[in-house]
Amino acid sequence: MIIDVHGHYTTAPRALEVWRNRQIDGIGDPSARPRASELVISDDEIRETIEKNQLKLMKERGTDLTIFSPRASFMAHHIGDFEVSSIWAAICNELCHRVCQLFPEHFVPAAMLPQSPGVDPKGSIPELVTCIEQYGAVALNLNPDPSGGHWTAPPLTDRSWYPIYETMVEYDVPAMIHVSTSCNAAFHTTGAHYINADTTAFMQLVQGDLFTDFPTLKFVIPHGGGAAPYHWGRYRGLAQALKKPRLADHLLNNVFFDTCVYHQPGVDLLTTVVPVENVLFASEMIGAVREVDPDSGHHYDDTRRYVEKSRLSELEKQLVFEDNARRVYPRLDAALRKRGK
Amino acid sequence: MIIDVHGHYTTAPRALEVWRNRQIDGIGDPSARPRASELVISDDEIRETIEKNQLKLMKERGTDLTIFSPRASFMAHHIGDFEVSSIWAAICNELCHRVCQLFPEHFVPAAMLPQSPGVDPKGSIPELVTCIEQYGAVALNLNPDPSGGHWTAPPLTDRSWYPIYETMVEYDVPAMIHVSTSCNAAFHTTGAHYINADTTAFMQLVQGDLFTDFPTLKFVIPHGGGAAPYHWGRYRGLAQALKKPRLADHLLNNVFFDTCVYHQPGVDLLTTVVPVENVLFASEMIGAVREVDPDSGHHYDDTRRYVEKSRLSELEKQLVFEDNARRVYPRLDAALRKRGK
Repeated sequence: MIIDVHGHYTTAPRALEVWRNRQIDGIGDPSARPRASELVISDDEIRETIEKNQLKLMKERGTDLTIFSPRASFMAHHIGDFEVSSIWAAICNELCHRVCQLFPEHFVPAAMLPQSPGVDPKGSIPELVTCIEQYGAVALNLNPDPSGGHWTAPPLTDRSWYPIYETMVEYDVPAMIHVSTSCNAAFHTTGAHYINADTTAFMQLVQGDLFTDFPTLKFVIPHGGGAAPYHWGRYRGLAQALKKPRLADHLLNNVFFDTCVYHQPGVDLLTTVVPVENVLFASEMIGAVREVDPDSGHHYDDTRRYVEKSRLSELEKQLVFEDNARRVYPRLDAALRKRGK
Repeated sequence: MIIDVHGHYTTAPRALEVWRNRQIDGIGDPSARPRASELVISDDEIRETIEKNQLKLMKERGTDLTIFSPRASFMAHHIGDFEVSSIWAAICNELCHRVCQLFPEHFVPAAMLPQSPGVDPKGSIPELVTCIEQYGAVALNLNPDPSGGHWTAPPLTDRSWYPIYETMVEYDVPAMIHVSTSCNAAFHTTGAHYINADTTAFMQLVQGDLFTDFPTLKFVIPHGGGAAPYHWGRYRGLAQALKKPRLADHLLNNVFFDTCVYHQPGVDLLTTVVPVENVLFASEMIGAVREVDPDSGHHYDDTRRYVEKSRLSELEKQLVFEDNARRVYPRLDAALRKRGK
C-alpha cells in the first residue's frame, strides 16, 4: 500500500472561492457576510473535481491513499479576525470530510485549524476536536506564522502553543507544520515562504526542548524538511554549539520529513542523510508545481519515481511508502486495520 | 591557489564590540555617542586576532586567500538610523582594510554597506565607492532585509535597488546577498534567517527579470544557495510555471553559489545539481558553526574536504577553488595578476 501523507484539496469547485471572496468582501461589514449555508456544492461536483484530478493522478502513479487537507495557500489565516478564520476553517474541513466520505478508500482527512495573528492558539482546539471525532481526521496542519509572512507569532516551542500539543497528544495525532499564502512581497508563497517555514520550524525545534515536555508529540515537516537535510551538518553543529543532544536523540523520535522534493538528487540526499524511519512518502499533488519536467518527461511532483530510483532497499521503501505513515499517524493505522488493511 | 570567497572578521578585538555597545547606548542621546577616533586598535592586536584564528586555520586547511568582510551578524542594520549605520559600516570596513593591508597575501576586502530599514539604498553608494577605490574591495555584501528578520524591504528586483546595481556594474564587483542578525524571535540567526534569506533571494530572482536590465550584474548566494539546490526541481518547475526561461538561461550567467554547506552529502548535491561554473569555494570560517564533527573528527566548516571528496574532476575542482572566483570577481583577478599570480 502506498500512502501519500501530504495532499490538499486544491481543486475544490469554484463555488468555494466565490463564497470565500464574498466572506472577505464582507469583513468590514459583518451583515454583508455570506452564511455558511449559502455555499452549495453537490456530491457530483466534488466527485468530478477529485476523479479528474487527484484520483486520476493517484491511479496513474500507483498511490492508494492520501492524507487530505484543505488547500494550504487558501487558509490565509491573516485575513479577517478569528471568527472569519473559524467559519472558513469549518467550511473547508467539512468539504474535505465530504471528499473522504465519497472516496473512503483513497482519502483520509487532516484538519485545517482556525488561527489568527495574535490570537491564543487555544481557540483552535474545538475545531480540531470536531475534525478528529466527527470527521475521522488523523492529523492537522499547524501554521507557525498565521500572519502570512510577517512572522509575528512566537516560536513553536513557546508555551502558548502547548494547549494544541496537549490535544494532539491526547488524541495521538501528528501535526504537519504548514504555512499558508504569503502576503509579504519579499516571499513567494510556494518558492520561498513554504520552504523558509520548514527550515524555520526545524531550527526552532533544534533550539528548544519541546519533546522533553511532550515525548510523544509528533511533527511532520513538509517539502522534504525545507533546507534542513541539505544543511544537516550545519544543524548538527548548531545543536552541538547549543549544548543539545545529537539530532537523532534531540528530535528524530518526534520529527519526520516528507518526500515533497521534486528531483532525484534531492530525494537521494534526503534518504541518505535522514534515517529512513523519519521519511514519509508524499507528493503534495496537486500543488505548488504542476508542470511536466521537460528533461524527464514526467511531472516534477511525481515523487514516487524518485523514491523508487533512490538507493533505498525494498524493505526501506516499504517503510517510506507505508509503514512509517502508519506509525506516525496511529489513527490512520487504526482506521485501516478496521477495514482489514 | 585556493580562494575562499566568504570569510568575515568575526574575531575582531574586543574594543570594537565595546565601541559598538557605546554607540548603541548613545542612540537616544547623540551627544553621548562615541567618536570614531575613540576606537583604538593597534596593528599588533589585529595581527594577533588573525594569526591565531583565520590565518591559522587557512594554513592548516591549505587556503591561500580569503575575500574578507566585516562580521555579518554584527552589521545589524536594524539598529539606529542611517547615520548610526553609516558610521558603523565605515569603522568595520576600515578595520577589514587594515587586516588586508597587514596580510596582503591572504586577505582581500569585500565591503559592508551602510543600510537602514526604509532608507533608500542609494545612500549606500559613497561607502561602497570608498571601499572599492581606496581599500581595494573586490565585492560587497548586500543585505536584502535591513530590518533584521521582519522583511520590510522590497524584493531585490525592485527598482529602488537599481542605483547599487549600477555602481556594481560600473566597477564590476559582485554582491554576496547576506543578511545580518535576526531580531525576530521566530528566526535563529545562523540556523534559519541566513538560510531563509538565501532561499528568498533566489526565488525573488526567479520571479523577476533583473538580468535583462543588468546582463553583467553578478550575485553570490552564500551557504550553498540556502535551500535552492536541494529543491532545484521545484525551482525549475516554478520558473516554468512563471513562463521564465530555463534556470540556466534565466539566472546562471549571473548567480553563483558558495560551498558553505557543512557535510559531504550537501556538497555532493550542490556539485551534482548546479553547473560547476556556478560553484565557488568558501567556508565562512570562522563563522556560524565552529565545532568539530564528532563523527569525522574535523571541523564542520572545513569545506575543502567535502569538495576534495566530491566527484568533481581535478579540472572542475580547479574551477571551484580558483578559476570561478577570478572570473566572478574581476577586480580580484586583476589584483592577483598585478602581483604576478
